[in-house]
Amino acid sequence: MSLSIGILGATGYTGAELIRLLHNHRDSRITYCSSRQYNGKRITEVFPFLQGSFDIELEEFDETAIKDRCDVVFSCLPHGTGMDFISRIAGSVRVVDLSADFRIRDLETYRRWYGEHTSVDLMGKAVYGLCEVYRDEIRDARLVANPGCYPTSILLPLIPLLKEGLIEAEGIIADSKSGVSGAGRGLSLKTHICETGESFCAYKVGRAHRHIPEMEQELANAAGTGVNIEFIPHLIPITRGMLSTIYVKALADEATLKDRLRSYYEGSRFVHVLKTDFPSTKDVRGTNNCLMGLAVNGTTSRAVIVSVIDNLTKGASGQAIQNMNLMFGFDESEGIDSLPLFP
Amino acid sequence: MSLSIGILGATGYTGAELIRLLHNHRDSRITYCSSRQYNGKRITEVFPFLQGSFDIELEEFDETAIKDRCDVVFSCLPHGTGMDFISRIAGSVRVVDLSADFRIRDLETYRRWYGEHTSVDLMGKAVYGLCEVYRDEIRDARLVANPGCYPTSILLPLIPLLKEGLIEAEGIIADSKSGVSGAGRGLSLKTHICETGESFCAYKVGRAHRHIPEMEQELANAAGTGVNIEFIPHLIPITRGMLSTIYVKALADEATLKDRLRSYYEGSRFVHVLKTDFPSTKDVRGTNNCLMGLAVNGTTSRAVIVSVIDNLTKGASGQAIQNMNLMFGFDESEGIDSLPLFP
Amino acid sequence: MSLSIGILGATGYTGAELIRLLHNHRDSRITYCSSRQYNGKRITEVFPFLQGSFDIELEEFDETAIKDRCDVVFSCLPHGTGMDFISRIAGSVRVVDLSADFRIRDLETYRRWYGEHTSVDLMGKAVYGLCEVYRDEIRDARLVANPGCYPTSILLPLIPLLKEGLIEAEGIIADSKSGVSGAGRGLSLKTHICETGESFCAYKVGRAHRHIPEMEQELANAAGTGVNIEFIPHLIPITRGMLSTIYVKALADEATLKDRLRSYYEGSRFVHVLKTDFPSTKDVRGTNNCLMGLAVNGTTSRAVIVSVIDNLTKGASGQAIQNMNLMFGFDESEGIDSLPLFP
Amino acid sequence: MSLSIGILGATGYTGAELIRLLHNHRDSRITYCSSRQYNGKRITEVFPFLQGSFDIELEEFDETAIKDRCDVVFSCLPHGTGMDFISRIAGSVRVVDLSADFRIRDLETYRRWYGEHTSVDLMGKAVYGLCEVYRDEIRDARLVANPGCYPTSILLPLIPLLKEGLIEAEGIIADSKSGVSGAGRGLSLKTHICETGESFCAYKVGRAHRHIPEMEQELANAAGTGVNIEFIPHLIPITRGMLSTIYVKALADEATLKDRLRSYYEGSRFVHVLKTDFPSTKDVRGTNNCLMGLAVNGTTSRAVIVSVIDNLTKGASGQAIQNMNLMFGFDESEGIDSLPLFP
Repeated sequence: MSLSIGILGATGYTGAELIRLLHNHRDSRITYCSSRQYNGKRITEVFPFLQGSFDIELEEFDETAIKDRCDVVFSCLPHGTGMDFISRIAGSVRVVDLSADFRIRDLETYRRWYGEHTSVDLMGKAVYGLCEVYRDEIRDARLVANPGCYPTSILLPLIPLLKEGLIEAEGIIADSKSGVSGAGRGLSLKTHICETGESFCAYKVGRAHRHIPEMEQELANAAGTGVNIEFIPHLIPITRGMLSTIYVKALADEATLKDRLRSYYEGSRFVHVLKTDFPSTKDVRGTNNCLMGLAVNGTTSRAVIVSVIDNLTKGASGQAIQNMNLMFGFDESEGIDSLPLFP
Repeated sequence: MSLSIGILGATGYTGAELIRLLHNHRDSRITYCSSRQYNGKRITEVFPFLQGSFDIELEEFDETAIKDRCDVVFSCLPHGTGMDFISRIAGSVRVVDLSADFRIRDLETYRRWYGEHTSVDLMGKAVYGLCEVYRDEIRDARLVANPGCYPTSILLPLIPLLKEGLIEAEGIIADSKSGVSGAGRGLSLKTHICETGESFCAYKVGRAHRHIPEMEQELANAAGTGVNIEFIPHLIPITRGMLSTIYVKALADEATLKDRLRSYYEGSRFVHVLKTDFPSTKDVRGTNNCLMGLAVNGTTSRAVIVSVIDNLTKGASGQAIQNMNLMFGFDESEGIDSLPLFP
Repeated sequence: MSLSIGILGATGYTGAELIRLLHNHRDSRITYCSSRQYNGKRITEVFPFLQGSFDIELEEFDETAIKDRCDVVFSCLPHGTGMDFISRIAGSVRVVDLSADFRIRDLETYRRWYGEHTSVDLMGKAVYGLCEVYRDEIRDARLVANPGCYPTSILLPLIPLLKEGLIEAEGIIADSKSGVSGAGRGLSLKTHICETGESFCAYKVGRAHRHIPEMEQELANAAGTGVNIEFIPHLIPITRGMLSTIYVKALADEATLKDRLRSYYEGSRFVHVLKTDFPSTKDVRGTNNCLMGLAVNGTTSRAVIVSVIDNLTKGASGQAIQNMNLMFGFDESEGIDSLPLFP
Repeated sequence: MSLSIGILGATGYTGAELIRLLHNHRDSRITYCSSRQYNGKRITEVFPFLQGSFDIELEEFDETAIKDRCDVVFSCLPHGTGMDFISRIAGSVRVVDLSADFRIRDLETYRRWYGEHTSVDLMGKAVYGLCEVYRDEIRDARLVANPGCYPTSILLPLIPLLKEGLIEAEGIIADSKSGVSGAGRGLSLKTHICETGESFCAYKVGRAHRHIPEMEQELANAAGTGVNIEFIPHLIPITRGMLSTIYVKALADEATLKDRLRSYYEGSRFVHVLKTDFPSTKDVRGTNNCLMGLAVNGTTSRAVIVSVIDNLTKGASGQAIQNMNLMFGFDESEGIDSLPLFP
């Protein structure tokens, strides 16, 4: 069998990353790509580097075509836009949605942070696609809400520690840094190389970033109690890579914390706790890996955790394929088992 | 009058930065430059870009020559090395030391973090050269200990707030990010462009970085009580620039905190609190400025402060010249009043 | 006396660079800044880093205001747009135009490369502002056409050699590389950090770049015969800096070529021929300098010349101020005598 | 069958790239890695990002171990060093040498550019591993001399055109630009991010770079006459990527040149001529591809060719694996068929 794959919004960065990764996925092929902006063009006109490797005509959204030609669809459309399209195909094909539309379980919370929701029915049926945490639910899901990049880098280290009561649920601070591709292919002064290159800044300081409710939902779930996180994102003048430095009150010593983290991810192909060192974003560039380091400061009893992912891979398209692999019974690492582009 | 200036260790990055800035300082000239490594060469052989602008022969350390030819000496030698040389000239010329040798007032603390101190006498006479805080003491000082780059970016926002009791002294966290020039001109894999370029990492995680005692000394002084800071430095893949994101418990609202910070730095040429925005490192590149933004998160009652400096200018050579200007009665901004290199 | 300066189109990169450089120009002040896009805002809203240093309200183009308040105007408007405004003020104030509108002396050539010209009268009165070559004419000029960045980097080394018949006028190749700020502050995928960062490309390959007629005009003038140049521009993933590698048939040996170049620029503050080395763009970053290296390949009898400038300084706003200094009898290097931002 | 692979000098950048690529090569495994510097350590201590993916103990060179455990050996040792080791194992295992030791067929030429050669016997038996040109010879080779990165980027476009007499063999100029990883993992100011970052320079100007004889040998072979190339390398402040801008006299029109190039590489998996556009280095990052664009300037009758490769992949380790695939009858693209890391 060969799985037939559709991509909605194929010409942005997460779409390009899906195409890159699926190129090395056996037993699947891309049969449909939509693009509002480049509708009617061939994808090699948008991404000339695909010449000689892959080509397909970009189409408008077409419900019938999708049902005829696809087993699974990845939606790379922005939140608020994707849900309408997804609700029209979700009965016929399985869907992995890379936007925030189906990540939040509480309607009121969704409305407060994102605005109106037009597919409330589907909301309840979506599974939050943090693979290492919700593996079983994902296998049976018809609609997976692929996690945000920041939440992925923060939840993977914190969920096991909260579940076992090894850290306090109160006073969690995440100081996160992301490469610019997280801002997408759209044009703004923030993505202009002359403004952002050779510079570094914080943004959305205060309780302002839309990934906060998604993190608090999952942290609360793990802790069994409400959680308020202090979350400040920053922009690194690089294309890919995300590093979160997380400050928490430790309720056990360093060795215990590391041991339990390692146990939780034992057998996991992509999540690793480093022995003594702390990871760099380059250590995971282009891969689906999440690497972590951890130290407890004896003077302050605070644990500092550093986690890194590639925001476009484990933080988006790589995890989306990992979800697809789970949903269709492939080996979990099919197509996404690669070493980082080093140097 | 024209001030005669000597530089010890002139061929590193802080030496080069002193030369760059002093080029536009009226009424002074560089009359002596030492370099162990390049002794006997002309400085245009080390820095070819100086051709046509400045040249001098690099000499070994020479006590007599310094006393004959210099009114003031900047020491760019590493800590532990500089103090011996400084102790031999401090009786004759005024000195600004850019190393950590004379920043710590408590001998035991110095020993614990840095090792043996061989100029204990001078220790007591040095003034900590954080210009906006110790302006009066610096005017009369014969030996100024120029602050570290990380401490400058963290102390400038925190000292006024601690002095007025507007934030808690406990639980301060500083998540700092520095450009690579802070690591100096020495060679290591950490400064190799293929390892550090397009990457981001934390280093010296845990209670490990030697700038910690210097910060805690000054924070305790401002707070009137002992302070333990959680400090994690990171490496940005850029040459110049430092940004500190500081998390503190607020004891007043956002408007009050900003007002008091602004009052404290009123009339100050180099320290500015932004109205609503948060600064980027590029906003101060090549300048002696420190810009700050501040927000209070109503949900957590935590204030987040973002401060930026150029680690080589306000964080090293620019502040050193500011100290010299104070010591010799020049206008405080002479030679260091410039706009950032934007873009 | 204090010179009153106006800037048309003050919120792009050449406008920002003028403001940066004029900050250190004694005896002048900026009294008028226009901006179509930001009309009515204060310039600190556009460039927050100016807070505490400089502020002015951005205005629409206003002929009367300019005549009342300015002695000299820099026009940073794009070619084709600026000429109409300039023609309305050129009778009252002196003008340095940073666009291409008045660089070409032959109307037909202008039309072929740029389209219609609406100020043909003024065309004949403009002086080409390559300062080291046309110093005398510039002193008396009322309208100076500031050279393009690529032409500046190519003409400075070639004009002296062609004038003395030391190289062939035929077969000149210039392989030039520019930082991205040359493309301006406008938004496009070419300036998106994720597309251009960590990449390198050629553009306008073939006889396609609009700087070609300007170069050929000046090269022909120096050679006394028509010149066709092969010119290929490339994009370096850096903000500032331009390097041209120029291939010419040598008619004399290396020592002679270097000697004559040095003689031509003797006494020149900004143009320097390196002894043995070849310059990097960083050697001139932020300065008005042009550095050159030269070697003759004995096997091919070809001279290879490498020249570097900062495209925004000597390649635009720095040279514009140098022109103003000549026009108003200031020291030629007033405000633009600085060392590069190294590292 | 599973091919057993050894790597000499596994801890440099070409070694790391071999490990990265072979990770996705079916039917082969790495059984031996040597490192003088890290002998006795595990490779995850040198490259922590391999944790969880690959590990092996680094050994000294050991002739017996290699013969016992390897079918093929890649030598990543520097020229002059590798040949002694290779001569001791070449009788027992097949070898791909990534250094220059066996690329030059003429002993005198080797001596003039590189110094003494200690394995003259083997010299005559080595095949030059430019896969698309010497495919048949490589299949039967026991020792392949993997081409240099610059030669690969220049020979692939020029050999077909010279063979068919479509361009002149005289007056060829190659202006090449390389990412810094080409300089290797060794430490020097040239690889220091603060010196090379945000900068651009030429190096080895004049007839100075050691890749020249290798290029001239192969160009002469294709042209049937001696060739002197003008070759100037430059350093791009990026890690990976190489772009050559090549200037030649065209003896046919643009369409003909492109057609013939396309015919020559028809069926080739890795070499592609773009339709109208010109490639960026990012279009091939991390891949074994070579993309080309070509234009003829009607005014000068000169063809300008732009070719791009990843210097570590097609320019080194990727082509080395392509050679291995040919030598052992694998599909030519096994393990190296991937899309570029975009963005």
